[in-house]
Amino acid sequence: MIKTPSPSFSLRIRIEIPDRPGMLGRVASAIGRSGGTIGAVDIVEFRDAKIIRDLIVSAPDEETEDRVVAAIRAVKGVRVLDVADRTFLMHQGGKIEVRNRFPLKSRGDLAMAYTPGVARVCGAIQANPCRAYDLTLKRNTVAIVTDGSAVLGLGNIGPAAALPVMEGKAMLFKEFGGVNAFPLCLDTQDPDEIVAAVKWIAPTFGGINLEDISAPRCFEVEERLKAELDIPVFHDDQHGTAVVILAGLMNALTVVGKPLGDVAVVVNGLGAAGVAAIHLLGLAGVRTVIGCDRSGILYEGRRENMNPVKERLARRTNREKRQGTLARALEGADVFIGLSQAGVLRGRDVKRMGRDPVVFAMANPVPEIMPEEAARYARIVATGRSDYPNQINNVLCFPGLFRGVLDCKARGINDEMLLAAAHTIAATVPREELREDHIIPGVFNRAVPERVARAVRKSAVQTGMARLKHRYASFYR
Amino acid sequence: MIKTPSPSFSLRIRIEIPDRPGMLGRVASAIGRSGGTIGAVDIVEFRDAKIIRDLIVSAPDEETEDRVVAAIRAVKGVRVLDVADRTFLMHQGGKIEVRNRFPLKSRGDLAMAYTPGVARVCGAIQANPCRAYDLTLKRNTVAIVTDGSAVLGLGNIGPAAALPVMEGKAMLFKEFGGVNAFPLCLDTQDPDEIVAAVKWIAPTFGGINLEDISAPRCFEVEERLKAELDIPVFHDDQHGTAVVILAGLMNALTVVGKPLGDVAVVVNGLGAAGVAAIHLLGLAGVRTVIGCDRSGILYEGRRENMNPVKERLARRTNREKRQGTLARALEGADVFIGLSQAGVLRGRDVKRMGRDPVVFAMANPVPEIMPEEAARYARIVATGRSDYPNQINNVLCFPGLFRGVLDCKARGINDEMLLAAAHTIAATVPREELREDHIIPGVFNRAVPERVARAVRKSAVQTGMARLKHRYASFYR
Repeated sequence: MIKTPSPSFSLRIRIEIPDRPGMLGRVASAIGRSGGTIGAVDIVEFRDAKIIRDLIVSAPDEETEDRVVAAIRAVKGVRVLDVADRTFLMHQGGKIEVRNRFPLKSRGDLAMAYTPGVARVCGAIQANPCRAYDLTLKRNTVAIVTDGSAVLGLGNIGPAAALPVMEGKAMLFKEFGGVNAFPLCLDTQDPDEIVAAVKWIAPTFGGINLEDISAPRCFEVEERLKAELDIPVFHDDQHGTAVVILAGLMNALTVVGKPLGDVAVVVNGLGAAGVAAIHLLGLAGVRTVIGCDRSGILYEGRRENMNPVKERLARRTNREKRQGTLARALEGADVFIGLSQAGVLRGRDVKRMGRDPVVFAMANPVPEIMPEEAARYARIVATGRSDYPNQINNVLCFPGLFRGVLDCKARGINDEMLLAAAHTIAATVPREELREDHIIPGVFNRAVPERVARAVRKSAVQTGMARLKHRYASFYR
Repeated sequence: MIKTPSPSFSLRIRIEIPDRPGMLGRVASAIGRSGGTIGAVDIVEFRDAKIIRDLIVSAPDEETEDRVVAAIRAVKGVRVLDVADRTFLMHQGGKIEVRNRFPLKSRGDLAMAYTPGVARVCGAIQANPCRAYDLTLKRNTVAIVTDGSAVLGLGNIGPAAALPVMEGKAMLFKEFGGVNAFPLCLDTQDPDEIVAAVKWIAPTFGGINLEDISAPRCFEVEERLKAELDIPVFHDDQHGTAVVILAGLMNALTVVGKPLGDVAVVVNGLGAAGVAAIHLLGLAGVRTVIGCDRSGILYEGRRENMNPVKERLARRTNREKRQGTLARALEGADVFIGLSQAGVLRGRDVKRMGRDPVVFAMANPVPEIMPEEAARYARIVATGRSDYPNQINNVLCFPGLFRGVLDCKARGINDEMLLAAAHTIAATVPREELREDHIIPGVFNRAVPERVARAVRKSAVQTGMARLKHRYASFYR
């Protein structure tokens, strides 16, 4: 596997070097030889014919980070004063906070925001519960709920260790959708208990984003909550991923000149994302799909490693009833969609795909095949990572999607709304800009959430999911 | 009952008046005659020999608000353009929000705050769960949990209608303690389910503030959660109220020159606050307490309106075994502490108390006796309201208390910590400044939360409640 320096392995190294020509060069050479990449160099201060400098150095992994530091220490005359891991530095004390929307500076402020004035606001909501949408944070607030059972590529790490991911997700909600999102990492992995917990905490929220709950429990949890709550419940690992995959795939197929209805797609990984992707691709018009998992190709009648969701899936996919390994499934296929784990796809598997292979290798944090290797045979390669082109990133979907559903006080999220989001994301890359390494908008393209919100809201209204009747009351009680 | 204009009934009235002398005077007179009080007058613009003005008018209640508006409308030549209720205006869209502590502006930011970099932070917490205290929001975040069963003086209004109060509480946490507090209004009032919900959501939080859960369920809920969680659980209606009452009472008794151990105290209302106040007063040295509730004096052997908590209380209070009404309990008493409901105390009851009566009438939003009436017989009157002197307000306790427990990563809150908080609050009013109408620091006295935090942290360390072993790790992983 080829290793690339990544900003996620980034050190701030403070060094003291003699103030004479050539010293920095020697340090830079040592860093380069040991596998680090210098991002930035700064002067902190001059002190007694010495210079204190900060170096920002990235590396492909922690071992290389350690080697880089050792290599700098070995340069004669150089002292390493401090080494800070920039990722850990950034997480220190948490990444989000709760803030007041206005200050409390006088007795009058207190009497209006809190007691006794607040009692009248409570009374207004008690008389008309829908007013929680205009008089509280519910209007713009989403819970990010996880049980920590399937976090990124890390697996079942539990609720406490999952918290940094949920906080990161909350940041994305705010940065890209203006949505208040609050992480709730549940100390239970029992589906009944997860359902109960979410139902009980629901009144504060205008929507629920389920996150990193392992399959097949996630399917049951989401279905039950959708049925029981009157606010949108959305398992992002399923539907967010499916939406962005569909958006990327539509554009990729435009580039390679194949219609959606004609391609053969292999989806590897039949967890939350794989199942939802197959479902949404089907709704969008893809007719030939083979699913694969740890046990190889999924076919009707397979015994090994099944669950009710896979049973249903087996009946609706793989019409040729192929059996065997992932490699076998890929023979002649047009599209590989990996939602599984690092390294399961080999270059020679890609080589045996049909003309102009499209490879979406989205295992996190390390893809099924590294893009450098896949690109030897594939025409288009996409990953889930922010440090490669064609990033299939859920952030293209969920902030705009939730902005849209909150803006119309939607009761739920249906397939039409998901398809609307996918089409909008795809259409945000103008046809004339589509290329092999640009099939999907960049995550910092602010037009995406704005357009997705509008499209989703419109679709919600058209399909009867919006609470249109409730308009915000006058400010006079 | 005497009615006073309150900023919680405050209108912003926009009027158009002819631009000639005397017009504003007529409007002001109309407002005064109809019971309103003008807080501020502003010019919005001049238009065609007319002036557009905003008037901020407060009133004692909604009926008076309506009368004020009608009276302005009746002034010849004056047009009312808009009436906004300032309390409702302030609540529009919610009072708190979730904010990012730094922006996400580059791929590097994403790669560090989210995937793939965040995976390493998760790994660090998985290896050492205590690191959630330095690498996540847990360090500084508290859940405000209610079931909406006993909200202010409003009773059982349910979770949605309770949300504005919990948001207001969150504002106070932030404004006075720098604590992130997030409201969770539970859609269940079953103690087992409340306990389960709080246990499941606990991993995100460094503490739990229970709020407005009715007695006697609140006692059981708190006790069970304290036993099962390794973070502080604090029912503010009980202990926060008790702490501030004790602080105020210590200073009030200094003013009237009576030692704590010598006074006879009547506590009316044996819900959450009453029970906790009796407990804490006892710990502080008060020896003579009579409890009263709807059924009159609580005595050992009483049958009516009992529960296990009252049974225990009956054995520890009212040593003379008095029976009868509240009025009977108050005969000759030194202190009345009301934690019950509006209007239950009459002037003539106060008149029959001992020398220099101390009356804490803390029912919310309308006290047991209005201060104007109580002051005819009492030497010291305190309420829970922000619009009278001597406000016995929990905000003097909980922001500093939680600041203190979060700063030392405390496992819980014990009686010693509560007493430390009460003594600190009392001591913040210098002895030479103590007077009948200044027995307790004002809520905007920033020295209070700071000192309370320090005292609580110190007490937590001394009594073994602080997690001292865990120091924040170096920034290098």
